[in-house]
Parts: sequence; C-alpha cells; structure tokens
Amino acid sequence: MDLERITSAANPRIKRLTALQQKHRERERERAYAAEGVRLFSDTPQELIEEVFLTEKLLSDDPGIAAKLEGCRAFLIPESLLEKVSDTRSPQGVIFTVKMREYAERDLLGGWDPDADLSAGAAGANSASGKGSVAPLLLVLEDIRDPGNLGTMFRSAEAAGVTGILMSAGTADIYQPKAVRSTMSAVYRVPHRYTDDLCGDIERLKDMGITVFAADLKAAKAYDTYNYVKPSALLIGNEAHGLTPEAAAAAGCSIIIPMCGGIESLNAAVAASVLMFEAARQRRK
Amino acid sequence: MDLERITSAANPRIKRLTALQQKHRERERERAYAAEGVRLFSDTPQELIEEVFLTEKLLSDDPGIAAKLEGCRAFLIPESLLEKVSDTRSPQGVIFTVKMREYAERDLLGGWDPDADLSAGAAGANSASGKGSVAPLLLVLEDIRDPGNLGTMFRSAEAAGVTGILMSAGTADIYQPKAVRSTMSAVYRVPHRYTDDLCGDIERLKDMGITVFAADLKAAKAYDTYNYVKPSALLIGNEAHGLTPEAAAAAGCSIIIPMCGGIESLNAAVAASVLMFEAARQRRK
Repeated sequence: MDLERITSAANPRIKRLTALQQKHRERERERAYAAEGVRLFSDTPQELIEEVFLTEKLLSDDPGIAAKLEGCRAFLIPESLLEKVSDTRSPQGVIFTVKMREYAERDLLGGWDPDADLSAGAAGANSASGKGSVAPLLLVLEDIRDPGNLGTMFRSAEAAGVTGILMSAGTADIYQPKAVRSTMSAVYRVPHRYTDDLCGDIERLKDMGITVFAADLKAAKAYDTYNYVKPSALLIGNEAHGLTPEAAAAAGCSIIIPMCGGIESLNAAVAASVLMFEAARQRRK
Repeated sequence: MDLERITSAANPRIKRLTALQQKHRERERERAYAAEGVRLFSDTPQELIEEVFLTEKLLSDDPGIAAKLEGCRAFLIPESLLEKVSDTRSPQGVIFTVKMREYAERDLLGGWDPDADLSAGAAGANSASGKGSVAPLLLVLEDIRDPGNLGTMFRSAEAAGVTGILMSAGTADIYQPKAVRSTMSAVYRVPHRYTDDLCGDIERLKDMGITVFAADLKAAKAYDTYNYVKPSALLIGNEAHGLTPEAAAAAGCSIIIPMCGGIESLNAAVAASVLMFEAARQRRK
C-alpha cells in the first residue's frame, strides 16, 4: 500500500484533526470528530470515515487495517507525531476523523411508529402492522457533565437494547475523545441527538404514548414496581444536582432506586444502567 | 479554637501525609491512608481520624468542622500548602489521615452465622436463632484495576445492601485517594478485606453455604434466573480480561448479563451494580 506521508504537526490535516479533538466549536462547525484506537477504527462504518492517520508499524503488523483503509484518505505518520496528537497515554497506531451521523427524532424510536399505535389504541398494534416490532426504550439525559459517564451510558444503553438517546444541550459532548472511547463503539450504533428543548421533547414523547420515567431521589415508588415493556423513556439528571424541577415535572412519573446504608445517590452511569437493565430484564420475559 | 500552624511541605507530618497519599507501601506499613474533602471528613468515624490539616477559611466558614475536630490532632495550613498536597483540582479546605479498620472474614457476613444455618439445614435458621437476620450478600472482586471503578463498586455495594467486599491481592488499592473519594464514604461503612488466596476463600464461602455466582461472558444462564435471597456472593473479574479460569471454576455457578447489539462487555462497575441491584430487588420482595 502506497500512502502519502505526513511528518509535521503544522500540516493542515493534522491541525484540523487536533482542532476536532480539542474544540467542541470545531466539531459543531464541521459536523465531524476525531477518534483513535484499532478497535474503534475497525468498528467505524466505512461511509463515516474521513481521514486516517496511522503508523507504518500498525499497517505492517495488522492485516485487517489495510482492508479497512480501502477507499479512505489515509496518511502515514511517525510514532512521534502520533504520540503528540493522541489523547491517550498509549496510542495504538491509528487516529482518524469521523463524520457525525445526523439523527431525526423518529430515529430514536427503533422503527416503532407512534401513529400506528395511537390509532389502534394498543401497544401491540406495531407488531401487528409490521411497522416495527419492539416498543421503544429511550434514554433521556439532562446535563450529564462527565464525558466518561456519558460514554459509559452509551455502552450500557446499546447492551440493554435502548433504541435511542436524547440529550439536553447542557449534556457533555459525546464526540469529545474520552466520551467516544468510553462508548466502546456504541456511539456508531445507538441513534442519539441533542435538543435545546428537553422539556418540550419530553412532552412530545408522552404525546406519542411513551411513558417517561424520571429517576428522582425524592420519588416515592421503587423503579421495579413499573412496567417497561410498554413504550418507555428513562430520564436521568445531572451527577451533582439531579434533575431540574422542570424536567421531573414534564416526565410526570418519578421512580427511585431504593438504597441501603448511608449512600445518598448512585453514580449517574450506574443508576442509568440499573434502570436500563431492569427494562431489558422485563422485556426478555 | 487555637490550633498549631504548619506552613512548610518539609514538615514531617506533611511528608507523612503525602507518603500515605502516594505510596501503597507506606499505607500498608502504617495501616493508614489519606483522605480529603469536607463531606468525607464529616463521614469519617471519629475513632479513625489521626491527623487533620485544614485551612483557616474552612474553620471559620463551616461551624460543623470545629465540632468534628474535638479530640483530633488538628493543624492549620495555608491554602497554598493545601493546593500543593491535594490530590484534587479544587481542594475543599481539609485533608486528613485515617486509620485502616481491620476486618476478619466473618465481618463480611453481616452478622450471619454460617454454623447456625448449617446445623439447621435451612436459610431461615439465622433469623429464628436471632444470630443475624439477613442472609449475607458479598461482592468478590478479582484484579479490578481502576481505582475509580473500585470506589464506585463500594458506593453501589453499600446502596444495594452488600454485607462485605472481598478483594484479590491484585485488585487496586481502595485506600488510594481517588478510590477513597469514589466510594462516597462507603469505605468507612462496608466491611472489606484483601486476600492472597481468592480461590481458597471462594471455596470456604461455599463450604459455609454461600452460593458464589461468577459473572462470566461465557456463561449460558442469565443472571436473573437465579435466586439471590439466599446467602450469595457475586464474583466480578478484571476490566479487560474478566475472571481467571481458576476463579470462575472455584465459584462453580456462572451467570451472564444478556446484552444486545455489538457491545462485548459492560463497564466492570456497571456490571457489578446491575447484579447487586438484582439481588437487592429480589430481597425487597
């Protein structure tokens, strides 16, 4: 494979790469982000890959990489340059830029058609009509601040069968390098979007027939007393402050994970995962 | 309150504090560790506090602090020295050293008496005999490496009603500053110990009548098909490599959290929490 070489951090492509790594504003403007690592690169849908920067060593050591480069704009860079631009302590030989995938609100419903369900007046209408067989399960996040927590939630969400993730504008940037890594590639597979009007969107989910459950430390009823087999959304608030009163009120239904001992709250990614896997457990029955 | 002042990082007490923060070996030798932050300080059992270093500002701003200092060896330090020794980006005005609490194997059982149960041949014997009313629920960790993950597991464990945490010698040090912080004070309240012979200890738990469930990605049966109301232990392996074959074999019973999509495994703290809260859910019924 004969690839062009880049050796200087001043190269415009490298400067764009580092801007996409470091700056939320640049990511927003370009609708693209940076990612790195062999596994993440292998998992990236071919049509989303923009530019790939890799070391000669990785190219010769890993036969799968050359195949994956087919049709990509790829460049060889020295180890020293990779170490300079990498966001990790032990870079794995490849760093690349990825186009954001744009999702509409409907994409978060997993193929379920709210109109079909509403007209039939029963949760079973969708499977009968063939318009999508599974009731949607959404994760709705308000102002989650830690990129690692956010990425971990994406990872858990995919594993629990969540159909889509809706995030308030104040939530951390899922395209920030640490968040992308923490998703374990779920960022490519779980439909997601940010919204400037979380409360409005929650109301719209309810209008579609989706029950929105707000994880709230002041709630009276335990999470496991509810049915999540029906169209459901799980609303999780900020790590330190929980949900805003507005978001909790919009949801309407509040749930709590009962806790023993002196602990006041769970880690936000843990709480979200406990709820998502309760829904998954009920849906397997 | 009239407290002695320390201004230099070369002061032997400050040198001991930083050694306890940074060095596992020192913590082992002294059977003590360092912790910081107002909440953690308030939660520390009085009898475990050794030496407290705080700023004049915190002492005058927070009336609860002075009361908590009663009977402690406390020293005033300038903000600049606190910033220098603190492990966090925004230190909260207090850093202190804590005696390790030493737990025996029995302390991890939550007051349950294995002999009472075995002689009666039924799980209900303990409550009847008054020798402890709740069946033990242990968390057993093999080589968890990330201090944040480990601390988060302690936090979840306390909230889920875990009676004790047993850790392999290869598990991260729970007395490392980040791990202590991540426990949200659960380190003071959940009995825990390290063992050089994890497999031997697992065998001994089984001999007591405790079922040991190994979280294993190769397991055939889903975690929610088992009963955790009985005396139970949940065994979780290393973040990257999972359980060793020896530990999985010692446990005998393997369980899996069924996963959708392309995710191969969950974050270790998330997986542990999903299992612990399934046990908690069953125990509430």
